[in-house]
Amino acid sequence: MSELAPPVAALIEEFSKLPGIGIKTAQRLTFYVLRSPADQARRLAEAILRVKESIIYCSRCFNITEHDPCSICQDPQRDRQLVCVVEEPLDVLALERTGAYKGLYHVLHGALSPLEGIGPDNLRIKELLERVRHEEIHEIVLATNPNFEGEYTANYLVSRLRELKSELAPRQLKITSLARGLPIGGDLEYADEGTLRRSIEGRLDLGA
Amino acid sequence: MSELAPPVAALIEEFSKLPGIGIKTAQRLTFYVLRSPADQARRLAEAILRVKESIIYCSRCFNITEHDPCSICQDPQRDRQLVCVVEEPLDVLALERTGAYKGLYHVLHGALSPLEGIGPDNLRIKELLERVRHEEIHEIVLATNPNFEGEYTANYLVSRLRELKSELAPRQLKITSLARGLPIGGDLEYADEGTLRRSIEGRLDLGA
Repeated sequence: MSELAPPVAALIEEFSKLPGIGIKTAQRLTFYVLRSPADQARRLAEAILRVKESIIYCSRCFNITEHDPCSICQDPQRDRQLVCVVEEPLDVLALERTGAYKGLYHVLHGALSPLEGIGPDNLRIKELLERVRHEEIHEIVLATNPNFEGEYTANYLVSRLRELKSELAPRQLKITSLARGLPIGGDLEYADEGTLRRSIEGRLDLGA
Repeated sequence: MSELAPPVAALIEEFSKLPGIGIKTAQRLTFYVLRSPADQARRLAEAILRVKESIIYCSRCFNITEHDPCSICQDPQRDRQLVCVVEEPLDVLALERTGAYKGLYHVLHGALSPLEGIGPDNLRIKELLERVRHEEIHEIVLATNPNFEGEYTANYLVSRLRELKSELAPRQLKITSLARGLPIGGDLEYADEGTLRRSIEGRLDLGA
């Protein structure tokens, strides 16, 4: 053996296709799997297969779900006039954990990125505009990431949603975004310039 | 859904059991698998299963192999009087790639680490000593890692091998280790203190 056994080389190759996993990490993971109990390796393999078999996208909000429509879209307790637009399913999870949001969601599955060739047709934007047209939505909360691609996507959505407004009359459509500012528990001294600038520009009137 | 669908949570959990994979990375990997073609996910799952099914340890050198004994131990071209002791199968691969070594190997599967509770019985040390007793071995090349655990393991092996020497007579047993010094292509300025100290202590006589 001056080369690795084919099954070992194959697993290294498959691991190295995962994002952020280089060849060295793929080798480490492979040798970990080789050494780990057969049971644990089987659970990992089966979890990969099961997630692909059982997880689908909600045909309404495009969140991941085992049943279509998803449990949030089906929940009669949710405010159906309010739709929060996020980039990824994990963002839904993060917002749900706050317990502060009671509306529906719309998952774009990414953000616009001219550099990476991701345009409006690669995201669930057409479907969002259709929802706005046909559902009784009164407010869209833009919750894309506070980075370049996220802000760019939000700006694009604002312009597309504004175009729709005349079509919707007499229904009013409010467009909002998550507040920007200092993170709670953070230290002003360590806040980056962008955050600090936004927190000054958006300073709150304490009504004193 | 205020929590993740169970198959998604399960895959995140399995990924996060891998070494160096935290919860955030496990989430990223899971969502990557969700988005990747079914085919690619299946190949990863199958590669994991296949590696566990088909890879065994060579009963002689404890390298990983599909057939016992492994192709190196079976190769009549290899020098059977020479055995290189390494910590891991990947070390065998690294040495094979140099093309500079033509002997056999012995894979310890780790290094002694009192802090982590890894003692001689957790490694293939007993098996190494048996091989030295019963095979016509004339030189042991210690190629454990040049770090604390590796050096500690090498020192331990030297003392155990010395104890054996009287048993082996009249056969002589030479014990060597890989040279320490400046890495080729490296920059003296950036070499760490330990490397530089070893490269001074082991300075080469150029015979001028």
